[in-house]
Formats: sequence, C-alpha cells, structure tokens
Amino acid sequence: MDDRRFLARAFQLAKKGLYTADPNPRVGCVLVRDGRILAEGFHRQAGEPHAEANALANATESVVGATAYVTLEPCSFHGRTPACAEALIKAGISRVVAAAEDPHPRNRGAGFERLQAAGIEVIPALDPEAAERLNPGHMMTHSIGRPFIRLKLAATMDGFTALPNGESQWITGPAARLDVQRLRARSSAIVTGANTVLVDDPRLTVRDPNIDAEISQWLLARARPVYVLDSKARTTSAHRIYQNPLAVQVCTDGSAPTHATSMITAADETGRVDLVTFCRALAERGHLELLFECGPVLAGAMIEAELVDELIVYLAPKFMGQGMPLLQLPELAKMTDVHAWQIAETRRVGPDLKLTLKPSQSE
Amino acid sequence: MDDRRFLARAFQLAKKGLYTADPNPRVGCVLVRDGRILAEGFHRQAGEPHAEANALANATESVVGATAYVTLEPCSFHGRTPACAEALIKAGISRVVAAAEDPHPRNRGAGFERLQAAGIEVIPALDPEAAERLNPGHMMTHSIGRPFIRLKLAATMDGFTALPNGESQWITGPAARLDVQRLRARSSAIVTGANTVLVDDPRLTVRDPNIDAEISQWLLARARPVYVLDSKARTTSAHRIYQNPLAVQVCTDGSAPTHATSMITAADETGRVDLVTFCRALAERGHLELLFECGPVLAGAMIEAELVDELIVYLAPKFMGQGMPLLQLPELAKMTDVHAWQIAETRRVGPDLKLTLKPSQSE
Repeated sequence: MDDRRFLARAFQLAKKGLYTADPNPRVGCVLVRDGRILAEGFHRQAGEPHAEANALANATESVVGATAYVTLEPCSFHGRTPACAEALIKAGISRVVAAAEDPHPRNRGAGFERLQAAGIEVIPALDPEAAERLNPGHMMTHSIGRPFIRLKLAATMDGFTALPNGESQWITGPAARLDVQRLRARSSAIVTGANTVLVDDPRLTVRDPNIDAEISQWLLARARPVYVLDSKARTTSAHRIYQNPLAVQVCTDGSAPTHATSMITAADETGRVDLVTFCRALAERGHLELLFECGPVLAGAMIEAELVDELIVYLAPKFMGQGMPLLQLPELAKMTDVHAWQIAETRRVGPDLKLTLKPSQSE
Repeated sequence: MDDRRFLARAFQLAKKGLYTADPNPRVGCVLVRDGRILAEGFHRQAGEPHAEANALANATESVVGATAYVTLEPCSFHGRTPACAEALIKAGISRVVAAAEDPHPRNRGAGFERLQAAGIEVIPALDPEAAERLNPGHMMTHSIGRPFIRLKLAATMDGFTALPNGESQWITGPAARLDVQRLRARSSAIVTGANTVLVDDPRLTVRDPNIDAEISQWLLARARPVYVLDSKARTTSAHRIYQNPLAVQVCTDGSAPTHATSMITAADETGRVDLVTFCRALAERGHLELLFECGPVLAGAMIEAELVDELIVYLAPKFMGQGMPLLQLPELAKMTDVHAWQIAETRRVGPDLKLTLKPSQSE
C-alpha cells in the first residue's frame, strides 16, 4: 500500500533529526502526487523550520493537489515558526496522511481540524506505534506527564560492573561505548548519581564525531544538560562533570549546594531525591527523553520505583566471579516478586551484546 | 556449486541422528548421478547400518557411476558393521565427496586411500568446519584426547541463579527448559557436582517427547549416564539422580562410595576430583560429548581450568539484585585477567535469551 510506503519514507527523514531536534519532536514530511515524490523535509533543530515547511520550501514545482505524509500531526499554533497546518492549506495540499495525533496540549487534533475545515482529507493515525518509538519522550510526557526514561547498564555475563578493586575500564568494547554516546546524543538530558561522580568522575559528554558522521557538526553542537542526584551535596565543582556548563547539582536542601548551578527538589522518606517529583520537574524544564547512567543504588531505585521505560543492557562475554554488582535491590523472598522484563531487541555491538528491555506486560 | 549443495543435504540427513547416534558420529550420505539424488541415508544408532550402507540399501536403481556425498570419511575397518569404503567400491560409486577426514585412529585417511586404490576420485575435506560442528566430541577426542565439553548456565540478567533463600524454580521459562533437555539429549554423558545433588536433588534426565517428536521413541530410549563429582561421597542412593541406572558416583577414595555404581579417580591438590584426569577417563569410556550442568563451584573450576569448549548461557530478562552467584572464581586484580569469551550465537527461546559462547581466540 502506497500510503504506508511514503509514510515509511517520512520516518526515514524524521530520523535525520534523531540527535538534534530536541526539545522538539523529530518529524519528517514527504509530498507526493500521482505516486511520485515532489519534495521531502525534516526538522533539524529548534528554531529552524518544521518538516512540513522544509518540504514545501524544497519543492521545485507546484504541490497543488499533492498528499503530505507526516510522522506527526501538523502543528496548528504559531510558535517560533508559523503553523504547519496553515502552510499546507496555503500550498494547496489536498490530502494529509499522519502517523499519529500530536498529544501536545496546544495541538491534540486541532491541526487535523484546521486541515479538515479547509476541505483537506485527513488520515490521522496510520502508524501510532512507530510515532511513539520515534518520539517516546514527546508522546509520553504529553500523555502521562513524566519524561520517557531510559536506563543504561553495562556488565559482564555474571552481572558485575567492575572488579572487586573497583577497576572497570573497560568491561565493554569500543563499539558498545560508541553506542552509549549515541544514547546520550539522542537524549534531552542525562541523569547520574553522586556516587558515580565521586567514584568514577566521568564527563558523560557527547564527543565522538563517529556517532553520525554526516551530521556531526549539529550533533556535537547541541548542549545536553547533566543532572547529578546529590541530596547531601557531596560532589564539588572540581568534578569533571561540572565542566559541562549545563551540569546541575540536584540537592534536597537549599543551603547545601557546592556547585554554582543547582536545583532543589523534594526528598523522599529516606532523605534521597524523590524520584517521581524530580522526573516530573525535568519534564517541566522541557527534558522529555532522559538517559540514566548511574551506579547500582540509583539504578536499583529507579527500577524499584517502576520509573524505567526502557532498559539498555550491554553485556560483555566475560566472567569475573566476583565484583561490583549491577543493581542494588531489596531482598526478594519469592520468585514471583522478581522484576520481570521483556526482551524487545537483541543486537551485537562489536564483541558485546546490546539488549533492549521493556517492562513486562504480563504483570 | 552442486558439490556443496549435495553435501549440505548430507548434513541435514546426518542431523537426524543428532540425539541417537552416540557413541558413534552422526553421519549422512547422499548418492547423486547426473545432478539427481538416487538415494539418501543416515546413521540412526550404534549397531545399526552406517549412513553409506543405508543410502545404498535405499537405492531403487543402480548407483554405478554415482557420486557419494558423506559428512565424514567412510570407515575402512570392519566394526559392528562392514566397512563403508568397501561397500561404496562394490556398488560402483565413481566419486566420493567428504566433508572431512575421520580422525578416528582406525581410519585417519585409510578410508580415502582404500577408495582411491579402487580408482575412485576423492574430495576429502570440502567442509571440515561443518563436520566439526556436527560431531564436536568425535573430532575433538580423536585429535586432542579429551571429550568436547559443553557447560550450561542459567541466570537472571544480573547474574543470579536463585533467590537468597535458595528458591530457583523457575528462573527461565518452559522453552528454555525444553532446550536444556535437547542439550542433554545430544550429549554422551551429563556431569554434575555433589552440591547440586545435595541442594536441588535433580534427575537430569531426558524425558520430554517434544525434544524431537518425530524421533522421540529412539531419543527417549537411549540411555545417558550421569556422573556426580562427589570426592567425599556425600550423596547417597536416596538421591533422585541415582534412579538412573547409569548414574555414577565419582569419588577420589576407593573406600568412600555410598552408591552402588562408582568410579574412583585422581584428586587434585585440594582433594577434589582432578578435572583433566576425569574428563580423559570419560573419553576412554566412550563419552565424547559432555554436558556439565552444575553449580557455581564446579562451573567456576571448569572455566578456570580452561576445559570448557562451549558455554551455553540462558539469560532470563529478570533482575534480583541479590541471590546465588552464577560462578565461583578466584578474585581477579586486573581487567586483562578477566575470563573473556566470544559470542558465537544469540537466540531467543520464549521470553529468555540463549547465548552460545566460545573461548576467546584473541588471548
């Protein structure tokens, strides 16, 4: 079916904005008439034209009577750029095929209504699952009110992240480490814990031009904030992570911060950062797709709180026998209490394995 | 190329004997003339005709001038059945394409020589790697003198095999457990440790007719010995594993056995069963492909001794945080000392993951 084929092309285009469109959704657009593509466009980065506007601008002939394939409902409101629904109407588009409705409160069907009011035929949701996969943060935040959360773990086959003496460089190979850079590159913000900063002093930056050589200038230019969950303010400005001007120390006590950029949030009953409150606060700051790269305590707490939407596990084909554990979780007494996940994808990265896990649907 | 295509068919046939041919190698044979298959055969079980004899018997027309495709060098000696090289000569075969030379000391090229002496054209080793994969025990034992050793492990993603209270039923799902039955079914013998018998009291039997429904009558009928490494003779005839009449208690002291069927072998410096001596002894007993299903101490010792040729790891997409460890290994001080493997195969079995690991070639 042609509609699906052209929409698939729009998704390919949208993915060119995978690492750069944030905080906007990644969107692609294809204009087609009589089975022939007239023009294509995608959204590169905030402040630049949207996918529809780019496709219209790229057309070298009239697009009157064409079908527009878009990976998300065209916007109905004039933001930093003019409303796309309006632009499609003005250009004489006669049909719009969208993958999904935009759940953004300023849109939510208003774009479709505007198109239909102008006599344009609208197919509003041809592939909502693909739209969800492309922009999990955007879709999730505007429906359930918290960001999409990805947790990255890396361990040996027997579940260790470092030798008993703490040595951890390197468990996984260069290909897996480059893949982690890709996870960071696509994220709105990265979250870590004070323990990780104190023990490993990482930078957690996006710095490898090989992430996507074709677009590395835009990709490396986009700033990504890092949040350090540090309720007791144990980290200091001397830690390398604060070389990132967008690094934020997250404390629970306003008098505590030891770093210039700080954020004060609620504490849970143990005095640690309240994770639900914190995650919702990041959504309000416009960070819709989060990457947690942290140690066993914070990772375990996130899993325990059922706040993880996607777990990426890099497994190195190695055995240590003993070492630092992957996760800290409360002791379980019954097999039915074990945290169960579903394997969504399995992929080899160099000598290592990358597993993508989703929360189990069965329980 | 036709030779490779017909040899591939011979391998398909050979695999019909995967679970039953032991202690003989699995062998398949295809007779071809003018690009047409005249007859096929494989070796079902010891005492029955070999693949070549079966193919010749299955022919409904003359095979004079045909090419015989065989997955292993035809035997040159008269054992429980007549020599296959002789039978091929008598039948008027004019060409023999074999995947590999048979390393058995009574053959080792003698079969090929006999064929060539009779004027038959011989292609002796068209696919030795596939021959090695089909009969790893046969190929390995007759070249390096010890059996092929497969170690099976099963754990959560964070490397635990049971809850802290010992509960382990079930970490993996029914599909993975059926797959373990297949590992047992193809093995010459199964090896476990006294700890596993004392703690879990398993049977380690092949009992599921779904292993391969088509041949379940032969598959379930074949007896597979189980060896319990029990240097201090702590297990007793009351343990369920000894319901198998072929179960053997392996002790290091002749006065110790608590079970009727026992085997006395050398102790290492710690008083445990000396693993190299034991494995060689099993080869002498005709067990060429071993499956180790055991706990963290014996599994760790086998890996430490570099005696494992293939590691099968079933990973359940679950997290426990704490529990029984997968392997017991001495503490390592440097990352370069970590036991490194290569991922040979990745496969989903129900909700779980099956990884096939081979010893790393790089070190």
